[in-house]
Amino acid sequence: MSTAADTYTPTDRTVPTRSRNRASYDKALVHSILDEAYVCHLGFVRDGAPVVLPTLFARVGDSLYVHGSTGSRPLRAAGDGVAAPGLPVCLTVTHVDGLVLARSAFHHSLNYRSVVVLGTAHQVTDPVELRIALDALVDHVVPGRSADSRPANAKELAATAVIRLDLDEVSAKVRTGGPNDDAEDLGLPHWSGVVPVRGGYGTPVPADDLDPAIALPAYLTAL
Amino acid sequence: MSTAADTYTPTDRTVPTRSRNRASYDKALVHSILDEAYVCHLGFVRDGAPVVLPTLFARVGDSLYVHGSTGSRPLRAAGDGVAAPGLPVCLTVTHVDGLVLARSAFHHSLNYRSVVVLGTAHQVTDPVELRIALDALVDHVVPGRSADSRPANAKELAATAVIRLDLDEVSAKVRTGGPNDDAEDLGLPHWSGVVPVRGGYGTPVPADDLDPAIALPAYLTAL
Repeated sequence: MSTAADTYTPTDRTVPTRSRNRASYDKALVHSILDEAYVCHLGFVRDGAPVVLPTLFARVGDSLYVHGSTGSRPLRAAGDGVAAPGLPVCLTVTHVDGLVLARSAFHHSLNYRSVVVLGTAHQVTDPVELRIALDALVDHVVPGRSADSRPANAKELAATAVIRLDLDEVSAKVRTGGPNDDAEDLGLPHWSGVVPVRGGYGTPVPADDLDPAIALPAYLTAL
Repeated sequence: MSTAADTYTPTDRTVPTRSRNRASYDKALVHSILDEAYVCHLGFVRDGAPVVLPTLFARVGDSLYVHGSTGSRPLRAAGDGVAAPGLPVCLTVTHVDGLVLARSAFHHSLNYRSVVVLGTAHQVTDPVELRIALDALVDHVVPGRSADSRPANAKELAATAVIRLDLDEVSAKVRTGGPNDDAEDLGLPHWSGVVPVRGGYGTPVPADDLDPAIALPAYLTAL
């Protein structure tokens, strides 16, 4: 599903009804937003009603892989990837970068970067692709970790389901900058500006049963 | 829709198919997870396909309010709240608290707290309820801010749509603790434990046009 183009082609479904100036179809931007996250919100339809579940994902080229149990609802619905029609999904990733405080309540906003991917998910059945996807899922959370853990064995592979969603109908939406107050509000006595939102990691906590001789690996101090 | 009970009543749709021991219907827990967030992922069905959009929300008692423009798709679909049937939605909130690194790739996990709310959203039309909801939406992001900004005027109110989703069919899901490695993996030489995920705020950045005489308010230094 990948193309040589630098942008995804907008569709009726990926052109927003408002704030169109915030929308982007740039592949590099979309990929950077996706790669900075490891949890997405996956939406699907069950008995006619929407369901949204948080779940791990990883990107490999122009495909996203979503991890789950073979017993989970969306993965069972996605079928075996060959005979089954697949599962229509919407996969959304959001980063909040700042709280935008305007003088007026109305112009309060958030600085954010989000990606919305629409498409049909299929279960991965090829064993080589499944291995690649599982490594990517681990390395997407902690780069370098898949090489420093025991790979899945046959029993574990059988209990793991991964679905693939190709990046095809995709859009990003980004807001940056300060508040957009109306001119007549600029003299109001309210503090106005942006509060940056920061993410980060605390000090790693070893497992209770970890051999004290095992030092914290470099890929964790680098996080 | 609120009841005196301390828990929400589980339904077929809110009992997970897996990891049932992580599910909770405790109201205090659900409320604490919701109140710590201000961005949710709202799912709805458009032309038979799922759509998931990040959006601001706030809780007032046993109701959630979601903010948007009167021109936005989900808010138009929710209708006028009286004659319209409303919009079936799924509102999901997720906090990631830690990366769980097991010796085996298979047992890698996340510590998280999530809430999934199922129901039908209706547009808020009562002007008093709309004011309460708008104040709550601002104060949910920055407690105390609604009192220190210009309230919406009539024109802004007309351009703002808020939908209400009552907390009725609700579940929380929580994972805590360290990795659950298999006994035969405990001797493997891989570091194992939890990397805490931290959120926080950076130093507020004043608007370019902010009067330097306006000091940073206490509710922002307290964030």
